[in-house]
Amino acid sequence: MPRENMPQENEAAADEARHRARAVVQALYLADLASQSLGIEIVDVAPGAVQIAMTVRPDMLNGHGMCHGGIIFAFADSAFAFACNSYGDPMVAAGASIEFLAPTPRGERLTATAAEVSRRARHGIYDVAVTAASGEVLAQFRGRCSRLRGPAPSP
Amino acid sequence: MPRENMPQENEAAADEARHRARAVVQALYLADLASQSLGIEIVDVAPGAVQIAMTVRPDMLNGHGMCHGGIIFAFADSAFAFACNSYGDPMVAAGASIEFLAPTPRGERLTATAAEVSRRARHGIYDVAVTAASGEVLAQFRGRCSRLRGPAPSP
Amino acid sequence: MPRENMPQENEAAADEARHRARAVVQALYLADLASQSLGIEIVDVAPGAVQIAMTVRPDMLNGHGMCHGGIIFAFADSAFAFACNSYGDPMVAAGASIEFLAPTPRGERLTATAAEVSRRARHGIYDVAVTAASGEVLAQFRGRCSRLRGPAPSP
Amino acid sequence: MPRENMPQENEAAADEARHRARAVVQALYLADLASQSLGIEIVDVAPGAVQIAMTVRPDMLNGHGMCHGGIIFAFADSAFAFACNSYGDPMVAAGASIEFLAPTPRGERLTATAAEVSRRARHGIYDVAVTAASGEVLAQFRGRCSRLRGPAPSP
Repeated sequence: MPRENMPQENEAAADEARHRARAVVQALYLADLASQSLGIEIVDVAPGAVQIAMTVRPDMLNGHGMCHGGIIFAFADSAFAFACNSYGDPMVAAGASIEFLAPTPRGERLTATAAEVSRRARHGIYDVAVTAASGEVLAQFRGRCSRLRGPAPSP
Repeated sequence: MPRENMPQENEAAADEARHRARAVVQALYLADLASQSLGIEIVDVAPGAVQIAMTVRPDMLNGHGMCHGGIIFAFADSAFAFACNSYGDPMVAAGASIEFLAPTPRGERLTATAAEVSRRARHGIYDVAVTAASGEVLAQFRGRCSRLRGPAPSP
Repeated sequence: MPRENMPQENEAAADEARHRARAVVQALYLADLASQSLGIEIVDVAPGAVQIAMTVRPDMLNGHGMCHGGIIFAFADSAFAFACNSYGDPMVAAGASIEFLAPTPRGERLTATAAEVSRRARHGIYDVAVTAASGEVLAQFRGRCSRLRGPAPSP
Repeated sequence: MPRENMPQENEAAADEARHRARAVVQALYLADLASQSLGIEIVDVAPGAVQIAMTVRPDMLNGHGMCHGGIIFAFADSAFAFACNSYGDPMVAAGASIEFLAPTPRGERLTATAAEVSRRARHGIYDVAVTAASGEVLAQFRGRCSRLRGPAPSP
């Protein structure tokens, strides 16, 4: 009886999509020396949605003794890159904007949560919230990606 | 004869402003572990205008084998921070946007040139162009800064 | 019995906040000749969240025969202004960005839905989605507002 | 002697490019009902660079009695559209950002000056400064355009 099976099939398809997204992001991460150098860890992956974590190290501080805004951006940008590439189609960042809402001190444990705003054949928009361990939102990032031209590499 | 002296006085004032800007940026740089960790070098400093350089290292590459967009942003953000703080009034980044125009390979020698677009008592806008050794513009960055509240530290 | 009354009290407080937001936005709208000239109608108002509608007129078309991007922006900007002012504290737009996802033809019935991303004492971030009658998202807008200085007018 | 003729040839080519840009922008303007409805006038046109003017009318004011930010954006967006289309290749706006630097009162005579930041085969970036009659910069706009796909219409 297909109608009774459908929910199970949908669930199985969702599971498979999630597994595939995890494998794609894991492979990207292994090749992404910059994210590894920043000490980024992958927390959760679903198609188009990724959560990562990072701790603010002394070598990430700016001249005001707070985390360099560029490092906050790079952290959010990694979450964005993982999320927009999670379907297996290679996407590159075309541009991004960030709003810094609060300064981030040394030692802070940061989480970046990327969510899909829009996804079309050749373009996508993703939002990333960077939060402190307390849950306070420290920065809001919005990234735009474009599909890489040429044949897609096997993910 | 005041009229003949004036150009010299203006030149002397400009020289002093430039010296002061250099001292401020040098002090910021010495405290800015993030910029040092990225291997950033200061090339030129004037009030509101700064040029810095950096070479793309293997640990700056993303999963596509190109320089991580977040590192390009962090590089531009450093030029912005130095430029908007060069007058000695402590400014913090409120937000920024970046457009990535071309991918940046390993080993590329990058230059970031920050120029002032707008400067008011409490807010400023600065543009930063990131260029390759060939002169090709790889990214365009626009940063917004706000004045830090509270007493200004002696620069 | 306070515990049983609490949900009702919360509901009453939410109702009052909603009524207040509606009154504030209605008053703003009556003074906002630009929004009226664009033919904007208010659809729904809650604290920090506003939905408005507008129909693309012939005098809103650009040289490509599609709705002028600036008009799309102005429409989203009105939703943003109503949402960030809905608490009664006067806020002004500090800046905004918009991504155009699809062209908008003449006669299209547009809806703009503003949602709060971040709200602090002096700053806020709001996202606005502009959608066609079909539900397709035509543009994504993000606005930043700052609190007007000086004494707040009674709303 | 070709070497002596070259400056004259270059000048003639520049003149021709300028004439062509003017004709393209003029044709666009005649089809652009939105820009005409805003009372926009074309002041100067060169390839990739356009200056336009507009006066803030009562029907452009927002609830705070100042020019609606969306109208300021639309004005800047028109200058951007004229500038990026001035070569005759049809370009559409992909996105834009704006920073509002000062409120704009009724009756103000505004000038928008668009300049080219980057121009490639399929993408461009243009900056637009919106100034008051006093020369004060009221807003800074940055627009991104993409080339329209399909055959180019004869300009």
